[in-house]
Amino acid sequence: MTRSDRSPHGGELPSGVVRIAVDLLGGDGAPAVVVDGALRACSADPDLHLILVGPREPAGEVIGALAVGDRERVSVIAVDSVIAMADSPLRNIRRETTVRAAAEAVYTGRADAMVSAGSSGAAVAASAHVLGRLRGVRRPGLAARVPTERGPVLLVDVGVTLDATMLELVQHAVLGTAFAAVGLGIARPRVGLLSIGSEPGKGDRLRRAVSVALSDVPLPAGGRYVGLVEGFDVPRGGPADVVVTDGFTGNILLKGIEGAITASRGGSKISDVYGTRPHEAAAVLLGVAGDVVVCHGSAGGAEVADGIALAARLHRDRITPAVAGLADDLLTELSSAGGLTIRDALGEHS
Amino acid sequence: MTRSDRSPHGGELPSGVVRIAVDLLGGDGAPAVVVDGALRACSADPDLHLILVGPREPAGEVIGALAVGDRERVSVIAVDSVIAMADSPLRNIRRETTVRAAAEAVYTGRADAMVSAGSSGAAVAASAHVLGRLRGVRRPGLAARVPTERGPVLLVDVGVTLDATMLELVQHAVLGTAFAAVGLGIARPRVGLLSIGSEPGKGDRLRRAVSVALSDVPLPAGGRYVGLVEGFDVPRGGPADVVVTDGFTGNILLKGIEGAITASRGGSKISDVYGTRPHEAAAVLLGVAGDVVVCHGSAGGAEVADGIALAARLHRDRITPAVAGLADDLLTELSSAGGLTIRDALGEHS
Repeated sequence: MTRSDRSPHGGELPSGVVRIAVDLLGGDGAPAVVVDGALRACSADPDLHLILVGPREPAGEVIGALAVGDRERVSVIAVDSVIAMADSPLRNIRRETTVRAAAEAVYTGRADAMVSAGSSGAAVAASAHVLGRLRGVRRPGLAARVPTERGPVLLVDVGVTLDATMLELVQHAVLGTAFAAVGLGIARPRVGLLSIGSEPGKGDRLRRAVSVALSDVPLPAGGRYVGLVEGFDVPRGGPADVVVTDGFTGNILLKGIEGAITASRGGSKISDVYGTRPHEAAAVLLGVAGDVVVCHGSAGGAEVADGIALAARLHRDRITPAVAGLADDLLTELSSAGGLTIRDALGEHS
Repeated sequence: MTRSDRSPHGGELPSGVVRIAVDLLGGDGAPAVVVDGALRACSADPDLHLILVGPREPAGEVIGALAVGDRERVSVIAVDSVIAMADSPLRNIRRETTVRAAAEAVYTGRADAMVSAGSSGAAVAASAHVLGRLRGVRRPGLAARVPTERGPVLLVDVGVTLDATMLELVQHAVLGTAFAAVGLGIARPRVGLLSIGSEPGKGDRLRRAVSVALSDVPLPAGGRYVGLVEGFDVPRGGPADVVVTDGFTGNILLKGIEGAITASRGGSKISDVYGTRPHEAAAVLLGVAGDVVVCHGSAGGAEVADGIALAARLHRDRITPAVAGLADDLLTELSSAGGLTIRDALGEHS
């Protein structure tokens, strides 16, 4: 497959080449771990071109560490602003920041995909603002792949939808199902809704309403709703390939799983536990019109490299257009039925 | 310490004797695992008397398996009704059920404490209804002790407060702090609020409001609010001794931690991972006027025995009256300020 048709600069890019914008200032360990991750990614994939977005000094460090013949694979967009973790992502959306400049590189076609290690709020806000959402999507969702002995589980959302609505969770079920099919190669994905028990009716008002709605929605790619699943079903796998939840619960569950594994293994990194396969520490942003990967804020260099490799694969395999194609009709239909409330779904009348 | 002053039957009980009402029909593996747990508990603690609440057949099994001299340590309250997991706890609250009969045994003084392995909704509803709540408490909270390398973490709530309110979370912080001090022996407990980041302001509306409120509340036993903590801080320990969250998130986090550990250890039980110390699989019900332990629905015999041992310790050490004594003023004050809303705490005006 050739990407040369996507080059906005007129020059033909070699077949297989993919250009990833990397936020040098994202993550707790930035820029050092991002520099480390960029170097690892470059050496692992000779067709990878990186556009480093951030201050010139760490960017120069990456370039200086590469063999002379590889230096043309790296370019720089110089930006110095930092998003502090405590800042409001929305307040900063209009400022020139590294994560916003990375999204703009994707928007203008200079990059094919982008990677940031956070803050995830800023990365999501900037990329959704600059790249736009897929048609009908109310809010994007971060999808994390959790490897289990029974196959991967895609957990959606892990941090975007705080105070989530019914429509957002149903749309994330649709997006997650499409991604599981085309991104993880799962035929007829089984979709579960995370709750506090598996019996019908268990959970809070939001879960009871979403469960009713999901029973009625025809999921894409032959996906089917299998009902409620519990916290242990995410790390163990089994009942569902896609587990849908609000971003508050999903974030806490994912970090709890990670903490439990590192604690029980005496502090080893999650990547040591699961091997070195990509995207344990990298989440895909679903519902945005572009390829965006958000790494865990505490990601190390190997994990940033995994995130870059995941972004490259998203682009090479045309995952995001395929997800959009599978989900478009449903998302639009759900959005226009957006007046449906939890009260309606639960059959409550005032 | 003697408990003879608590005997309602006039007869003097031997010093140290404690009488636990055990719900024979609670839990996924009932009655078999409860029978197993009862036998283990009896052999571990010669001063333990059990009041088995449920059908005569499994009760007879326990008695038959004991040495003749030990049989007087076990009595039976015959009840045959079962609470199906899918049933509404509230719909069943007026029916004669094993868990309700166990609570009544505590209320009338026939038992000193009670243990049920669920459903937790039914156990909480029945015990709160029969025994009453501590003064000022809006809703009880289930507190689970998570052992970590840096000491135990008390996670409150793990399943009661779905659609939780600000007042409920603040009251659970107060109850959890008092329990950590008198039940876990932690001096000046550090209290954290579970959220998606540790920087001030992270989280959904509920968390932002509760964080504001907790900064103002004088916690009992020298406890202090240390701010927001994250999912990994529960299995790893470190920043907080007491972690406060709503019952939906807490339930999912606890089960996620358990699932991650069993998955990473190749399916071993959580009690094998942490050793055999009590109450990993048993939660204490805080805010109810009596000693109530709720075991995990999937508890095995060893875990039911741990729950019985925990209930015995609660009673012997007079934990619940001590918690009530430490928390009473604050709970009452908070309750009478119950009109405080999330909008007020966040400084929003209509």
